Amino acid sequence: MSTIDADSCKVDVMDTIESNNYNIYFQNSLSELASFVEKGGYSRFFILTDENTAKYCLPLLRERLGDPDNFDIIEVNAGEESKDIDFCIGVWKMLIDFGADRQSLLINLGGGVISDLGGFAASTFKRGIDFVHVPTTLLSQVDASVGGKTGIDINSIKNIIGTFTQPKAVFIEGEFLKTLPSRQILSGTAEMLKHGLICDAEYWNQLKQSDLTTPADWMVYRSVAIKNAVVLEDPNEKNIRKSLNFGHTIGHAVETYSLINDKDSLSHGEAIAIGMICEAYLSHKKSSLSAEELTEITQVLMNLYPRYNLKTADNTTLIDYMLKDKKNQNGKINCTLLSKIGQFNIDNICTEEELIEGLNYYANL
Amino acid sequence: MSTIDADSCKVDVMDTIESNNYNIYFQNSLSELASFVEKGGYSRFFILTDENTAKYCLPLLRERLGDPDNFDIIEVNAGEESKDIDFCIGVWKMLIDFGADRQSLLINLGGGVISDLGGFAASTFKRGIDFVHVPTTLLSQVDASVGGKTGIDINSIKNIIGTFTQPKAVFIEGEFLKTLPSRQILSGTAEMLKHGLICDAEYWNQLKQSDLTTPADWMVYRSVAIKNAVVLEDPNEKNIRKSLNFGHTIGHAVETYSLINDKDSLSHGEAIAIGMICEAYLSHKKSSLSAEELTEITQVLMNLYPRYNLKTADNTTLIDYMLKDKKNQNGKINCTLLSKIGQFNIDNICTEEELIEGLNYYANL
Ligand SMILES: NC(=O)c1ccc[n+]([C@@H]2O[C@H](COP(=O)([O-])OP(=O)(O)OC[C@H]3O[C@@H](n4cnc5c(N)ncnc54)[C@H](O)[C@@H]3O)[C@@H](O)[C@H]2O)c1
Ligand SMILES: NC(=O)c1ccc[n+]([C@@H]2O[C@H](COP(=O)([O-])OP(=O)(O)OC[C@H]3O[C@@H](n4cnc5c(N)ncnc54)[C@H](O)[C@@H]3O)[C@@H](O)[C@H]2O)c1
Ligand SMILES: [Zn+2]
Ligand SMILES: [Zn+2]
Repeated sequence: MSTIDADSCKVDVMDTIESNNYNIYFQNSLSELASFVEKGGYSRFFILTDENTAKYCLPLLRERLGDPDNFDIIEVNAGEESKDIDFCIGVWKMLIDFGADRQSLLINLGGGVISDLGGFAASTFKRGIDFVHVPTTLLSQVDASVGGKTGIDINSIKNIIGTFTQPKAVFIEGEFLKTLPSRQILSGTAEMLKHGLICDAEYWNQLKQSDLTTPADWMVYRSVAIKNAVVLEDPNEKNIRKSLNFGHTIGHAVETYSLINDKDSLSHGEAIAIGMICEAYLSHKKSSLSAEELTEITQVLMNLYPRYNLKTADNTTLIDYMLKDKKNQNGKINCTLLSKIGQFNIDNICTEEELIEGLNYYANL
Repeated sequence: MSTIDADSCKVDVMDTIESNNYNIYFQNSLSELASFVEKGGYSRFFILTDENTAKYCLPLLRERLGDPDNFDIIEVNAGEESKDIDFCIGVWKMLIDFGADRQSLLINLGGGVISDLGGFAASTFKRGIDFVHVPTTLLSQVDASVGGKTGIDINSIKNIIGTFTQPKAVFIEGEFLKTLPSRQILSGTAEMLKHGLICDAEYWNQLKQSDLTTPADWMVYRSVAIKNAVVLEDPNEKNIRKSLNFGHTIGHAVETYSLINDKDSLSHGEAIAIGMICEAYLSHKKSSLSAEELTEITQVLMNLYPRYNLKTADNTTLIDYMLKDKKNQNGKINCTLLSKIGQFNIDNICTEEELIEGLNYYANL
């Protein structure tokens, strides 16, 4: 059982957060980016966008950077498909064609797809060029842009290839969230609720009383502070970083399943919300989470997220995905569970029967 | 101008060499591998081979490991083509299909192609699994397996994608060289001669009097010791590691050219030997290498390596490749030169005219 010092994440002023040798900027963040670009001594700049961020976010970025002409834009399709290795090869080839050298900087302007793809492409191009993140979805602001994980997919196996590489800086600008569809907002909210559940009961209580369709700046800040504190304490995922996996053992399997089977597939957060409900059930069954807490978590999440039709027949497929998950080894499936709201415990081996019980708890709600 | 302490590389017993958190074994190296495998706590083992090492080297390895059955073999074609991203995707997919988890070990059994490809594939699979090298060519023993560079090619652009990741150990076994064709031996010899030229005149003098078609164990050991000392002092190639680029600015361009244009393309060492002659010329012209030393270097290399027909018409193509080389920035071409035999100086910007003069020196020999 472990906790992180949640009090260290309670701050009134949204000061710059120091991470693993780089800064996460909140105030005047695009001006900070402009000065980073100006002072960085880079030879060339590249901005990675997808169709949507090219349309909704790039104009503001260009304006704040003084509409420079020494930028080349690399645009990919919107959506998880762009994390496929084929798109990554496309990004590498564009960098080659544009003549990127080792002193180039890649600016990842977009959601988690862009930061994961761009981070991986940059961390391996010419054995590594610098990159920064300008996250434009709530999910990427509170989660994907912090912690140094990069990743791409092969055959829809998520993040099967990747590196641990830190960005040179992260610039968080609330303005970008204004054009984000509400479904994407809620995708990020799931991670914020997770941050409360695993290590900050006060934050959870505040969130559950707030209007989460338009999250306030301070919430983004608090979530980033929590995630950053966790990854700083355990960069290589030996112990407490595993707390962030709460909801993700089952959630990832559901996400993969939906990606393959549904036309309009679940967002990451929607899948993780389902995973958190199932794993809260397991926390009650296998750890000390009380029945009242399980009910509370279930209700908050079911109120926010649409019900998903989990068919019993698919349970074996889901278990199969869990076994293939890189976090699970030797055919054993590992969950992070809650001992109470605001406190987690890691490395709980769950049997297939238990996991199916968790899935059924959700299916029968 | 810099030197490394060559005396520190002179050793009588071929003791294990300590590198960046890992060991390079020489004596009973396959028994050392067997005990590494036994004690490592790995869940699964994979051996990456090419057609030739599967035939010539795998039987010995299996025997020394006690012909285990918990190994899966991943075999690629022999030759540089296997460093293409498409083969790398093939390796990743095999690891997925074989069910490799994060506790798996990849054993790279082969030349520089296998260690570069396997090192890259492992360093990015599930954000990094352990790998070791069992180098089976002279080139990979004295060069590719030491220093932590991994790399693959895209569109024949060599090592355009890669990481800096150290193996967990390197096991050097002289026995493997017995089946290696003499042309491949000479490919490795070029790097050994380079080690003498850049920082160990005594070693150069010994090598030039030896029969280099069957290099002795002590030579391999001395070369590894030199390369290791250099990379340990400067892991990120800020300064003295650049000494290892002697011959490589021009040599790499010639190698790429030959790869694209020749049916029977130059080996790495053959290309680097040409590069060293051209850059020795530049060392005489731009640094303090004497005319006698230039002649000596030219003669030793011309005696060992076949003459290659460099056409003047191709000079611009070669310059173009040099400009695209990841080591060159901002359109400036950088060479490591010799101030005398056994002493280098780095960061010499060479003009296109000078480089063409160097190429012409070789062409007119
Ligand atoms: N590296 C990590 O630690 C980490 C953590 C969590 C999730 N992830 C990854 O992140 C990805 C999911 O992230 P995501 O939800 O941000 O996905 P995403 O990048 O696909 O963004 C979601 C959608 O929002 C659009 N969009 C982005 N910004 C917009 C804006 N400002 N206005 C309007 N539309 C906008 C995008 O075009 C896309 O259609 C997954 O691939 C997941 O694996 C990584
Ligand atoms: N990472 C580094 O620091 C570094 C340094 C130098 C070179 N390299 C890379 O190394 C590669 C060249 O290495 P290489 O010359 O070893 O190439 P290679 O791996 O292609 O081996 C050369 C040939 O020898 C065969 N072979 C290997 N072992 C044999 C054996 N014991 N008996 C018979 N045949 C055998 C191979 O099948 C191949 O046909 C290049 O791609 C180069 O970029 C990397
Ligand atoms: Zn998540
Ligand atoms: Zn070389």
